[in-house]
Amino acid sequence: MDQPRALLFDVFGTVVDWRSGIARDAAPFLVAHGCTVAPAEFADAWRARYQPAMEAVRSGTRPFARLDALHRENLEAVLAAHGIDPAGVAEADLDQLNRAWHRLDPWPDSVAGLMRLKARFIVAPLSNGNVALLLNMAKRAGLPWDAILGAEVAQAYKPQPEAYRRTADILGLPPGACMMVAAHNGDLAAARAAGLRTAFVPRPAEHGPGQQADLAPEGPWDVVAADFLDLADQLGCPA
Amino acid sequence: MDQPRALLFDVFGTVVDWRSGIARDAAPFLVAHGCTVAPAEFADAWRARYQPAMEAVRSGTRPFARLDALHRENLEAVLAAHGIDPAGVAEADLDQLNRAWHRLDPWPDSVAGLMRLKARFIVAPLSNGNVALLLNMAKRAGLPWDAILGAEVAQAYKPQPEAYRRTADILGLPPGACMMVAAHNGDLAAARAAGLRTAFVPRPAEHGPGQQADLAPEGPWDVVAADFLDLADQLGCPA
Repeated sequence: MDQPRALLFDVFGTVVDWRSGIARDAAPFLVAHGCTVAPAEFADAWRARYQPAMEAVRSGTRPFARLDALHRENLEAVLAAHGIDPAGVAEADLDQLNRAWHRLDPWPDSVAGLMRLKARFIVAPLSNGNVALLLNMAKRAGLPWDAILGAEVAQAYKPQPEAYRRTADILGLPPGACMMVAAHNGDLAAARAAGLRTAFVPRPAEHGPGQQADLAPEGPWDVVAADFLDLADQLGCPA
Repeated sequence: MDQPRALLFDVFGTVVDWRSGIARDAAPFLVAHGCTVAPAEFADAWRARYQPAMEAVRSGTRPFARLDALHRENLEAVLAAHGIDPAGVAEADLDQLNRAWHRLDPWPDSVAGLMRLKARFIVAPLSNGNVALLLNMAKRAGLPWDAILGAEVAQAYKPQPEAYRRTADILGLPPGACMMVAAHNGDLAAARAAGLRTAFVPRPAEHGPGQQADLAPEGPWDVVAADFLDLADQLGCPA
């Protein structure tokens, strides 16, 4: 096939392992506050509030707000739901825990795959994470992005079509010159509807041992790859 | 001094040599269209329309428009002023010449200096160039930006204070944790007024052999460095 110019990556779950990272950073906080919930369960509970928070922005109920702000509101709610009054926690400790989303580790193939892909394509996140979150994550983990794009720059949250179309437009490219890379069939369906090409990379450990969703491709994606190294192989990037 | 977290760079003139690059790419175009103006003089004439075009946006006379669009309007005007009717030039040729701004070469110290600075600081452009222009330039030249920021992301052209303040805010940093690096005293004065730190790096060849302006610091800048390698030295970045 003729090749795209830019590869745009979903990040939470596709590039980085959010569940392990949040659990790791929440564990000492939970112990310090006498909360016995399993850290991975706490991570799931925090993440469960992610889509509803963005939905308020998507529906126009509230103006665009950065994911850092939504994460913070969700953190206070999930702490309260687990018996920890956020008003009784030092601001610096809340902020530190909220920034656990800036400190997520990549999957083992992510950095090496992106390095190979970057030699031939523009590589950038098209994430609902805000610029500072994605930039701090990239500096810590060595993710070699060419630019930090996504919801904050587009001022629209995925899966709204504007998130995809505006990102292509900012790159000066038609949507069809961009390929969305994601571990989530829903993200790819929205990207395809917006005119982008699609690559599915399953991440069967994203949700832990009991994962049910997104184990296999569920649409006519242009590429299905086992990981980012396989994606680089399939797109003709030298090792 | 305590250190900034992010170094934000002016690009045209500070990181790259726009005059030589535009002259190089304009030269064959001008010959092909029978125009005898010196290519460097053509570059100066094109660039002379840069500030007035942005001023229409700054003043609110027109909505925000990307620099690629302003460059294109200015190109058509400067061609007409030199006796070339842009309506008689193939669209692909106009677009190719307009994208000469995406193909500018860095000063000899730029890439090596940025590599050293990147190891310790966030490094990003805070340019009036649009994202695609800056990204394509960086891919071609090897500029190792951590993110592509500037007027398009901030939706304000320098030297408006919003261009500086919104960029710091997007990084999740107070203005004082950001240092503007520029070869232009006016850019630094506006950055300082917006609360940023400042570093002056003179580029005495930016305007060619007859340069009069910006040969020396004209304000109380935090750092004055001979080039980006000297800036890295002064900010304590290992060679």
